[in-house]
Amino acid sequence: MPRYKLTVEYHGGPFVGWQRQDNGLSVQAVLEDAARALCGAPATAHAAGRTDAGVHAFAMAAHIDLPKDYGEDVVRDALNHHMKPRPVAVLSAEARTDDFHARFSCVRRAYEYRIVNRRPPLTLEAGLAWRVAEPLDAAAMHQAAQTLVGRHDFTTFRASACQADSPVKTLEEISVTRAGETVFIRCAARSFLHHQVRSFAGSLVEVGRGKWRAADLKAALEARDRKACAPVAPPDGLYFLRADYA
Amino acid sequence: MPRYKLTVEYHGGPFVGWQRQDNGLSVQAVLEDAARALCGAPATAHAAGRTDAGVHAFAMAAHIDLPKDYGEDVVRDALNHHMKPRPVAVLSAEARTDDFHARFSCVRRAYEYRIVNRRPPLTLEAGLAWRVAEPLDAAAMHQAAQTLVGRHDFTTFRASACQADSPVKTLEEISVTRAGETVFIRCAARSFLHHQVRSFAGSLVEVGRGKWRAADLKAALEARDRKACAPVAPPDGLYFLRADYA
Repeated sequence: MPRYKLTVEYHGGPFVGWQRQDNGLSVQAVLEDAARALCGAPATAHAAGRTDAGVHAFAMAAHIDLPKDYGEDVVRDALNHHMKPRPVAVLSAEARTDDFHARFSCVRRAYEYRIVNRRPPLTLEAGLAWRVAEPLDAAAMHQAAQTLVGRHDFTTFRASACQADSPVKTLEEISVTRAGETVFIRCAARSFLHHQVRSFAGSLVEVGRGKWRAADLKAALEARDRKACAPVAPPDGLYFLRADYA
Repeated sequence: MPRYKLTVEYHGGPFVGWQRQDNGLSVQAVLEDAARALCGAPATAHAAGRTDAGVHAFAMAAHIDLPKDYGEDVVRDALNHHMKPRPVAVLSAEARTDDFHARFSCVRRAYEYRIVNRRPPLTLEAGLAWRVAEPLDAAAMHQAAQTLVGRHDFTTFRASACQADSPVKTLEEISVTRAGETVFIRCAARSFLHHQVRSFAGSLVEVGRGKWRAADLKAALEARDRKACAPVAPPDGLYFLRADYA
């Protein structure tokens, strides 16, 4: 069966998350239903990351096996046609050999977290960012965040429901930058724990507000205790940015 | 009565436009109702531009007279409180003397029109841009647009329902730039005719697609005939950008 790598953009707002669940509509179900409408047969979509409810994607990587070779452009356009009016779009479909697996072949995932740092409520960016009213020192956030880089036991920044075998992960890079009133947190790793980026964002905001010093973030990491984490940032600001393959 | 200049951001999607109308909710009504909730008395809001249904604003300028001096921060925060959950936000409130009028004192208005130039449908930017699937040559659009600069009879680019006394306006500047898949059309003038920017956008897209040459845009302008205009671009891509005062 021909395998297609799909690059998928979506607005997480109306979904229970990437993964198919009984309690509501998922991105996976929208994509699989569209594939079924195209092929007349069920198909399973696998993704590089299983984003939570409300989390967005600029370029989620996924793959799907279709019963015949429709051609890349036809796959992209037909899936988009059948997904209307859901806010999910296949940006590209690329033929791949069977040894490509969107989840298991992925060597690097990147996320972005967007904070709009202002007092007035959000209008144009409602649902697309976390509004934080208190002034944030992005430079202090960036500096403190560097303590998270490297191989660590990230128990502090891991949801209690996280199903990963080990809390030890290697954070390859993290940066905090400001453009106008928007603060961007970007990070990359081979893989992430459940709620890891939102836990980072919540804790880094404490640094940005001046409630935590860099040493407090380091102490939270070293505590290896979920209770040492600041309140987890809301899903609205989180974007799956990119999946890299060898 | 103390007068406040308000800088207002809004998502035009749920509104019939800036101006109060019988057929639905307007930005003006949301703002005036919030002022009434704050003061217990009716207040009228005047704006630099009366945007159409679905048109957004990054920084609409407006003014409103309140029965007492609440202080700038209180006015901003109280109006924002009372406007929830409507997608309208007062970014700032500034005390002004009675000779300031958001509409009549305005010497320059700026608009931005956003096109996402790609084949897949919009998800994160749905309602916030016009998707154009055919590849657009932004440089050709920019070059052709320069013929619109200056004092002209803009009958071609004016809605038939436009109530302005004269179709003659002076376009101060217009630019077309590309950043990734987004094409921005930005223009500024003392004032604009009804549907003028959306008429420019629709016609410039014909240039970008290669259907019109620069000479065709010039001929359309010189025709002074509404029928010479290309189809008007949808409201979703239009943003009131800025109002300048002397």
